[in-house]
Amino acid sequence: MTKPQDVFDSSDSVRTARPLRHAQTVEFAGPIKLELGGKLPSVTVAYETYGRLSEHRDNAILVCHALSGDSHVARHGAADDPGWWDTVVGPGKAIDTDKYFIVCPNMLGGCRGTTGPNSINPATGKPHGADFPNVTTTDIVDMQRRLADHLGIGQWLAVAGGSMGGHQSLTWATRYPARVRGAIPLATSPRLTSQALAFDVVGRNAIFRDPHYHGGQYYDKASAPHVGLALARMLGHITYLSPQAMQEKFAATKLRPRDVATEFEKKFSVGSYLAYQGDKFVERFDANSYITLSMAMDLFDLGATPGELADRLAKSQCRWLIISFTSDWLFPAEHAREIADALIALGRPVSYCNVRSDCGHDAFLLEDELPIYGGMISGFLANLRGESPTAHVPAELDGLDRYRPQSIFSTRRLDHDRIVELVPPQASVLDIGCGGGPVLSRLRQTGHTRLMGLELDEQALLACVRRGLDVVQVDVNKGLRIFADGQFDVVVLSLTLQSIRNVERVIADMLRVGRKAIVSFPNFGYHKLRATLANEGRVPEPFNWMGFRWYNTPAIRFLTIADFEEFCRERNFTVHQRVALNTEEGREVAGDANLNADMAIFVLSL
Amino acid sequence: MTKPQDVFDSSDSVRTARPLRHAQTVEFAGPIKLELGGKLPSVTVAYETYGRLSEHRDNAILVCHALSGDSHVARHGAADDPGWWDTVVGPGKAIDTDKYFIVCPNMLGGCRGTTGPNSINPATGKPHGADFPNVTTTDIVDMQRRLADHLGIGQWLAVAGGSMGGHQSLTWATRYPARVRGAIPLATSPRLTSQALAFDVVGRNAIFRDPHYHGGQYYDKASAPHVGLALARMLGHITYLSPQAMQEKFAATKLRPRDVATEFEKKFSVGSYLAYQGDKFVERFDANSYITLSMAMDLFDLGATPGELADRLAKSQCRWLIISFTSDWLFPAEHAREIADALIALGRPVSYCNVRSDCGHDAFLLEDELPIYGGMISGFLANLRGESPTAHVPAELDGLDRYRPQSIFSTRRLDHDRIVELVPPQASVLDIGCGGGPVLSRLRQTGHTRLMGLELDEQALLACVRRGLDVVQVDVNKGLRIFADGQFDVVVLSLTLQSIRNVERVIADMLRVGRKAIVSFPNFGYHKLRATLANEGRVPEPFNWMGFRWYNTPAIRFLTIADFEEFCRERNFTVHQRVALNTEEGREVAGDANLNADMAIFVLSL
Repeated sequence: MTKPQDVFDSSDSVRTARPLRHAQTVEFAGPIKLELGGKLPSVTVAYETYGRLSEHRDNAILVCHALSGDSHVARHGAADDPGWWDTVVGPGKAIDTDKYFIVCPNMLGGCRGTTGPNSINPATGKPHGADFPNVTTTDIVDMQRRLADHLGIGQWLAVAGGSMGGHQSLTWATRYPARVRGAIPLATSPRLTSQALAFDVVGRNAIFRDPHYHGGQYYDKASAPHVGLALARMLGHITYLSPQAMQEKFAATKLRPRDVATEFEKKFSVGSYLAYQGDKFVERFDANSYITLSMAMDLFDLGATPGELADRLAKSQCRWLIISFTSDWLFPAEHAREIADALIALGRPVSYCNVRSDCGHDAFLLEDELPIYGGMISGFLANLRGESPTAHVPAELDGLDRYRPQSIFSTRRLDHDRIVELVPPQASVLDIGCGGGPVLSRLRQTGHTRLMGLELDEQALLACVRRGLDVVQVDVNKGLRIFADGQFDVVVLSLTLQSIRNVERVIADMLRVGRKAIVSFPNFGYHKLRATLANEGRVPEPFNWMGFRWYNTPAIRFLTIADFEEFCRERNFTVHQRVALNTEEGREVAGDANLNADMAIFVLSL
Repeated sequence: MTKPQDVFDSSDSVRTARPLRHAQTVEFAGPIKLELGGKLPSVTVAYETYGRLSEHRDNAILVCHALSGDSHVARHGAADDPGWWDTVVGPGKAIDTDKYFIVCPNMLGGCRGTTGPNSINPATGKPHGADFPNVTTTDIVDMQRRLADHLGIGQWLAVAGGSMGGHQSLTWATRYPARVRGAIPLATSPRLTSQALAFDVVGRNAIFRDPHYHGGQYYDKASAPHVGLALARMLGHITYLSPQAMQEKFAATKLRPRDVATEFEKKFSVGSYLAYQGDKFVERFDANSYITLSMAMDLFDLGATPGELADRLAKSQCRWLIISFTSDWLFPAEHAREIADALIALGRPVSYCNVRSDCGHDAFLLEDELPIYGGMISGFLANLRGESPTAHVPAELDGLDRYRPQSIFSTRRLDHDRIVELVPPQASVLDIGCGGGPVLSRLRQTGHTRLMGLELDEQALLACVRRGLDVVQVDVNKGLRIFADGQFDVVVLSLTLQSIRNVERVIADMLRVGRKAIVSFPNFGYHKLRATLANEGRVPEPFNWMGFRWYNTPAIRFLTIADFEEFCRERNFTVHQRVALNTEEGREVAGDANLNADMAIFVLSL
């Protein structure tokens, strides 16, 4: 696991707002009214930019920082201080500063140059302190919108951000839909969990009840609420790491703390780490900003029910790439999934992946899972700009590896040919277990535009995103409840039936979600397979796929065409078409299909 | 979900140690030396008892409380204050006060009558305060041992405890092995996770850095470190609940807090809850005790490696019932499993279940999962006392439901008869997928004593525990790495092979762990099954078990006797015996087994 770095210059004071070295500032005259009723006489926004804005102003990407971040998203050169997202933003990186114009502003309410509690209130000549009004994510985004106007950016190619930065990308997409082509919310959610909220409450209480807080008016005092802020930061740090990451980092050295100069407990290694992080944080962050911004985060709510969420997201017009991380317990995957689910239900173009990671919430800042999430971001951005999908897709991701009928070694698969032919022109298609997207890509070539894939494998998901296909990570055994009745014209299940445990549920869901279902499967009734069992007393493996045997085949369901026909008859499914293939001989079968076909394709409806 | 109650009388002051209403006390003269070098001039132990000690003094159960608990484990009558474990301890309950004599002492270092930081130091006439020496779990248990001596209890029938109480039960079993017949550690671990430790560090820092802490000498001051202690308690509360439970409790009412009188933030419902819990806690608990006891918990370490853990646990002589809860993230299941794994590797009598629960760490205090964990405790205790297993085991848990050959409706199963015959006398046996224990029970009847079962299903595990069988919840697909090479004479896999995904791994593990393996499976080569496919073109279901069909059968692997023989031949397994059965006709098959048997039993070794 990569070690998260603390990238800030600890010598800066936060007693007064001061833009970072490379930041530019723009002042917006007021009064500026805020969502919850507050007012600011004027607002300064500090921001940094990277790369060059294209002639058509169509390559601008807004990067939104998280609770404790700032405008310094990346280095401006080799000699520069590290940025908080150097892993992702830079020349040749996932968000490529050679191709895109990147803008990263410090948030309203922050303490790094943009107006916040530590800014001088022109009315009093003193810092706002506790008088700084409550701000919301909407207010933060509205100032970013003013910045976009100032920079002459009518539409962002993308708005990207993790954690609280993800809240801003969600707000952009729903509040200024025409100004966002693509939204990339990472490690985020439509609202905090009650648990995450509870941690924030304890952190704020530690600050509020620090005797040096003085009700927020501590800027002219000899001391600031450093103990409370450090406690809040310690707590935050625990929530940013996964339990596994903490165990790996601290379990072996439990009683061998680092020798840090601190007044906090340092008996245990994890304690010395937290003490160090807490002490360092108070040098670069302002307690009032912490309270202001954490409260904005806690109040963020894109909708508490699927219905409310859908209402809000319905306003968006962009493509979506949503990424969560399996070990992130602060912004857990199931909450990110709620966003994806609502967009799916709305029929919006969305890709979603829950990236396998041990790094916890911090994963989106680290290199460990960069090949997946960074690869998806760069592929998504390239497709947004209309670059033709050139990504090489390995054969195994096109399903040629997992299920390759012996006679079909070319990339033209007889069964895929027939499935593509069976899909009516213009039909919308959901492909379950889509792999790297071989069928969907073919359908796109034949002019189909409303396409979506479901897949579990990360590499296959990445291949789809690179190809510009919308793909969502779903375990179909758990059902397709996210999809509305009749949401697709056709739902395809291509050579996947035999690997599914909940066959009844998946087929029922397909017929609910699709007006028609296309199902292909290996036929166990094929005469060669029958003969193997009858004459040799051995259980055959259809197609001899990849040399699988009875004890290791991914196929866990065995059926014949007759079995499937009975299955449909018992449930009164309408069978519109039945295609019987002999893939060994590369031809369609006319006569007794159950005896002569090694594969069948059924077109069904209720 | 049941609401956890706060069971303490908030009117008590904790400025001075005072036993609870029903507590008795005993004083042990000193000086008493402590593990880390400290000394106490004398120690008072406050404890409560329930039920009556039997004539043979063989029915005494020690219940150990957790961090913030006390001696009042249960009501002494209907009019009494609630106890912290009324769900489990009482007349007719899992720990039955009508049958057992229950003792619950307040921990050394606590603040409820047993000597702790708020006790008067006889040397100074003032409370110990911060001068109170560091205590460890060993010290806590040593005082309980003195109490046992005082009460004339030579051996506890069982030592039970959850969380930090679990640490005490582990310490008893390993430090005073001859004095413990059964250990019941619940929701506990051999050592805290780094994450749990980190939360404790933050909590202690909140107390240490509270200006009212005065280095621990606050008893004669006007105020105590209530803010710090309340912050620590708030944090603790978050960790005791599962994320699901918090969501259920607070998400819907997010912005509708309870109207509590508090100086803490109460903007959100979860905030008002935490504020209430924090404010209430400081009325009944002492900050120095919190620091003393949480430090004892943090220092507890039964071994950081499997080897160290095994060395410690090797000292134990008791039977074990270890229970964790799936949503407990403070004491996660995998850490409880480390204890069970070490005991398994040592060949000790242990049962383990990871009870499915949404209640988090608090689950062991609540009624929600009581039928499982309470049922296991009462069954375990009954067997410890040598009560004959009378529990009714439903037929389906004896495997009659899942796999019932048509002709065998009686509880005598032909295949079980043969398996029992194939096991040599006195052999130790591991039964993989043991269900409610039908084969193991038969083996016990035939004089086998070293028996262990592996099972996934909670109800089946409960049935085994009630029957007095040792059973461990294991997903065999993940391998049997916990078992040593050759640990058992025989490993049985009875009609389970066909439901296993990782066949190769499981069989290889069986042959490593057992000197011999007995494997039974349905034979897909049986002539009737062949005929169904060959003549009717339909995939047959062996035995027509329970009417399963191709799309819903739990069987996911299909094989014939010939397939299995080849499998063994390719791996050079020695086949010692092969029993071919025709269960339809209730007889053994002599001729062409692959054609005439519907079930086979193989005895293998490497």
